[in-house]
Amino acid sequence: MWIRTKCSLNFQLEEATPLILMLRPRSGMQQWIARESYRLTPTVPIIEYTDIFGNLCQRLVAPAEKFRIDTSADVMTLDKPGKIDWTYFVEIPNLPDSILTYLYPSRYCESDRFGKMAREIVAEAQPGYEQVECIKTWISNSIQYLPGSSEYPESAVEVNMKGHGVCRDLAHLGIALCRSLSIPTRLVVGYLYGLEPMDLHAWYEAYVGDRWYTFDPTQRDVGVGRVAIAYGRDAADVAVYTQFGPPAIYTSIHVSVELLPAEDTGV
Amino acid sequence: MWIRTKCSLNFQLEEATPLILMLRPRSGMQQWIARESYRLTPTVPIIEYTDIFGNLCQRLVAPAEKFRIDTSADVMTLDKPGKIDWTYFVEIPNLPDSILTYLYPSRYCESDRFGKMAREIVAEAQPGYEQVECIKTWISNSIQYLPGSSEYPESAVEVNMKGHGVCRDLAHLGIALCRSLSIPTRLVVGYLYGLEPMDLHAWYEAYVGDRWYTFDPTQRDVGVGRVAIAYGRDAADVAVYTQFGPPAIYTSIHVSVELLPAEDTGV
Amino acid sequence: MWIRTKCSLNFQLEEATPLILMLRPRSGMQQWIARESYRLTPTVPIIEYTDIFGNLCQRLVAPAEKFRIDTSADVMTLDKPGKIDWTYFVEIPNLPDSILTYLYPSRYCESDRFGKMAREIVAEAQPGYEQVECIKTWISNSIQYLPGSSEYPESAVEVNMKGHGVCRDLAHLGIALCRSLSIPTRLVVGYLYGLEPMDLHAWYEAYVGDRWYTFDPTQRDVGVGRVAIAYGRDAADVAVYTQFGPPAIYTSIHVSVELLPAEDTGV
Amino acid sequence: MWIRTKCSLNFQLEEATPLILMLRPRSGMQQWIARESYRLTPTVPIIEYTDIFGNLCQRLVAPAEKFRIDTSADVMTLDKPGKIDWTYFVEIPNLPDSILTYLYPSRYCESDRFGKMAREIVAEAQPGYEQVECIKTWISNSIQYLPGSSEYPESAVEVNMKGHGVCRDLAHLGIALCRSLSIPTRLVVGYLYGLEPMDLHAWYEAYVGDRWYTFDPTQRDVGVGRVAIAYGRDAADVAVYTQFGPPAIYTSIHVSVELLPAEDTGV
Repeated sequence: MWIRTKCSLNFQLEEATPLILMLRPRSGMQQWIARESYRLTPTVPIIEYTDIFGNLCQRLVAPAEKFRIDTSADVMTLDKPGKIDWTYFVEIPNLPDSILTYLYPSRYCESDRFGKMAREIVAEAQPGYEQVECIKTWISNSIQYLPGSSEYPESAVEVNMKGHGVCRDLAHLGIALCRSLSIPTRLVVGYLYGLEPMDLHAWYEAYVGDRWYTFDPTQRDVGVGRVAIAYGRDAADVAVYTQFGPPAIYTSIHVSVELLPAEDTGV
Repeated sequence: MWIRTKCSLNFQLEEATPLILMLRPRSGMQQWIARESYRLTPTVPIIEYTDIFGNLCQRLVAPAEKFRIDTSADVMTLDKPGKIDWTYFVEIPNLPDSILTYLYPSRYCESDRFGKMAREIVAEAQPGYEQVECIKTWISNSIQYLPGSSEYPESAVEVNMKGHGVCRDLAHLGIALCRSLSIPTRLVVGYLYGLEPMDLHAWYEAYVGDRWYTFDPTQRDVGVGRVAIAYGRDAADVAVYTQFGPPAIYTSIHVSVELLPAEDTGV
Repeated sequence: MWIRTKCSLNFQLEEATPLILMLRPRSGMQQWIARESYRLTPTVPIIEYTDIFGNLCQRLVAPAEKFRIDTSADVMTLDKPGKIDWTYFVEIPNLPDSILTYLYPSRYCESDRFGKMAREIVAEAQPGYEQVECIKTWISNSIQYLPGSSEYPESAVEVNMKGHGVCRDLAHLGIALCRSLSIPTRLVVGYLYGLEPMDLHAWYEAYVGDRWYTFDPTQRDVGVGRVAIAYGRDAADVAVYTQFGPPAIYTSIHVSVELLPAEDTGV
Repeated sequence: MWIRTKCSLNFQLEEATPLILMLRPRSGMQQWIARESYRLTPTVPIIEYTDIFGNLCQRLVAPAEKFRIDTSADVMTLDKPGKIDWTYFVEIPNLPDSILTYLYPSRYCESDRFGKMAREIVAEAQPGYEQVECIKTWISNSIQYLPGSSEYPESAVEVNMKGHGVCRDLAHLGIALCRSLSIPTRLVVGYLYGLEPMDLHAWYEAYVGDRWYTFDPTQRDVGVGRVAIAYGRDAADVAVYTQFGPPAIYTSIHVSVELLPAEDTGV
């Protein structure tokens, strides 16, 4: 399945402003970036580095006045969700070292406060995938998904109290609940084909059985057509852009995701 | 300056319990581990790995009933605090890539909520070291240091509301305030010679000028005699031990730090 | 300065063959990848990872019969060679930790055998940049550059005996000579605008003063228009492709590098 | 099984000399360092860092005249060699990313020159463990093990021509032969209980089935009582000490390895 993603950011800034961006998806196990572009208007010096979670990050100083970033990618993603076998709970001693960091509480996922609630939600579920699915269903049913309703990330505790949130908020709650059961869970920011209304999207992955599995409480089915841009413990690790200094006069973001006929994936 | 640290952990556990420990200090720029021991009673299989922040972590499954860990180290540390020159604020574009992660909010340091308060506290200070010193003094004067008063980590927002806390709590507040001014700051857990009452200790380091500098709002002077065990964004990254499963029946910790005559540092 | 690079690999294989490729340039301090494509014909599953030197590597199994890889990139590179100030020899204790690996001998750069020869070549030169420049000039004058003359990498000892070689061979000799003087040196594989005859190219970088500097004994001037694909200790670390199993029936490679008018760098 | 290792290095140097050392074994899957010491006489500033292979390295400047390093460790190692099940050849596409670097030729292991010879040696063997065992036996029978016979590392090609060598030389040949069959292989430097004459030792590990397995052509049985200090592609990566500048007037090394009654492993 071939997807073309586009994301444009427009800034109007009072003064020259350092930005850290995460807008370059990486090729990996689940997606192949066959074509990619990343254009700055006006052109300014830009440096790329890899963060502690393996994401590509771009650093630059945006000029005062208008500044624009246009990115685009042609990505081959999985045609079907990965087959879900007997995806059991992985006992802590058997988890790979590199996964352990996703067990701990983080800025917006206070998993240390959700143990009791999580155990109640999954009371009937088998340890592992079934627990995570159970949590996802509970969130879908209990927390209202209101796209565009908030600007700043909210923590799992806050989201749980409010009872509604954007995709990122629902993901934070899902992550906190899973981690409180000692299931490693991470936030994913990326694109989802067919999302309504179209925007950048956030969901989460839980490590059960032998790999990461995708969960998204905002969608009926996990479906296909996902392109990951960045992974982290929560939104504090994976802001698409982080801006330092005085707030922007104006910021806008434009996202599109289209299906690509295979014959158009050429160079 | 030679210091001998000792830390013993005693557990009484209802059932076999996975533990992740951070009890092995690393040699680095500021400390040299000349002798070190790490004993388990009873002996159980144990594996060591390095986490994303560079800390040595130990994984094991503690047996049900009694379990004990005894660690000790002879460490050469700096005789004097590093000289503090003109330690200016480092503009974001000039920060090393590896430092950027310490700018973001984290579980217990909600720096995204402290911008206004931080700017008021440092209103008179020069950007950089002076700002961080100013924040430290403000915490020393405004937040009561009550060793042993809390068991679980509290976040900067909570500490600020309560007005008192343990060393870790004061550090969380200091970190949140510094980061809100775009100064990279990290938590350090370790030993401090002469600490009253003796215990494991927590403080923080801020990156100004050209390196990390130590700050400790619980002490009049930053002093000497510090041995770092682990670094991270906050207590969620650097718990000395993390225990999975049902709570321990009983846990105790014993810490001692003594000055070592140079002639006793032999093998 | 904007450059468009293209590289196509054609394979005809007797049987399905695992390949490891290094064909995706990374954005970094010296180059920005504004557009990039990487197409496989036929399409096969492909995975990307980062090696110990920070290079992006692609893994796949090429099908029997015909297989083709087409890559292309639009890259912004430096308009001028970096200014060369007083680029002194860096004493070993002052080298960054991450640089030390480039001091050691490697498969094709037996620096442990070149100490005497290197000291003779640089007898009159100031330690640092001048020594490296002196070695480069000596190679340009003493070793004949014969593009296309060899297929397999040869080691510095072999190149020195033969007296001629391809770009990679001359680079291996330069690296071995520099390292024998305790100057960290690394191989770069990439593109060079204006190279005659056009092909993939190899040169080296030496760490003097405060950063890596480019040296290329095959060219009169270091010039501009270089795009790095991969860095390593020598050709054993940075083969553009590594093929496992029986030799290919046929392999061909096509490279082009053109100057890009700034207005054509759009998405 | 508890082992106490000791290694002392004595230097007499004409001038202050930078040294890079690898003398601190790490705890990992196969060994636990319960006690450890690392003493310098006289005391000089020393810094520790981790290299690209995960080894702990120590950097210092040894003073002119006499300088001494004494290290010691109490290590719990495996009581028995790991069970050898059906340890099949791992197809390249199934190797973990981090293992691939051990497939390539390196300074002293010119695996690109041994394909034909290796295929002849293993003609009758099953792919995987049996091939590696077959190579080990061939080396034991064909290359004379002469401890202390050479000072500088020799490459597999050289060792194969000479027909004799020290432990490191035999290991280099074993590594080159295995890699030429696309079996990842790495050099290990460490201690071996019962080695005659006692010295630092070198052997190699091959990745077959699901993990690294130990091979040592200098010993009838792989046995137990091994403590690894450092891993790498060959001796160029894992010199116990690397010295820069003029040769030492005098260097000596003293090694001892003793069995430790379990009751003596205390702090």
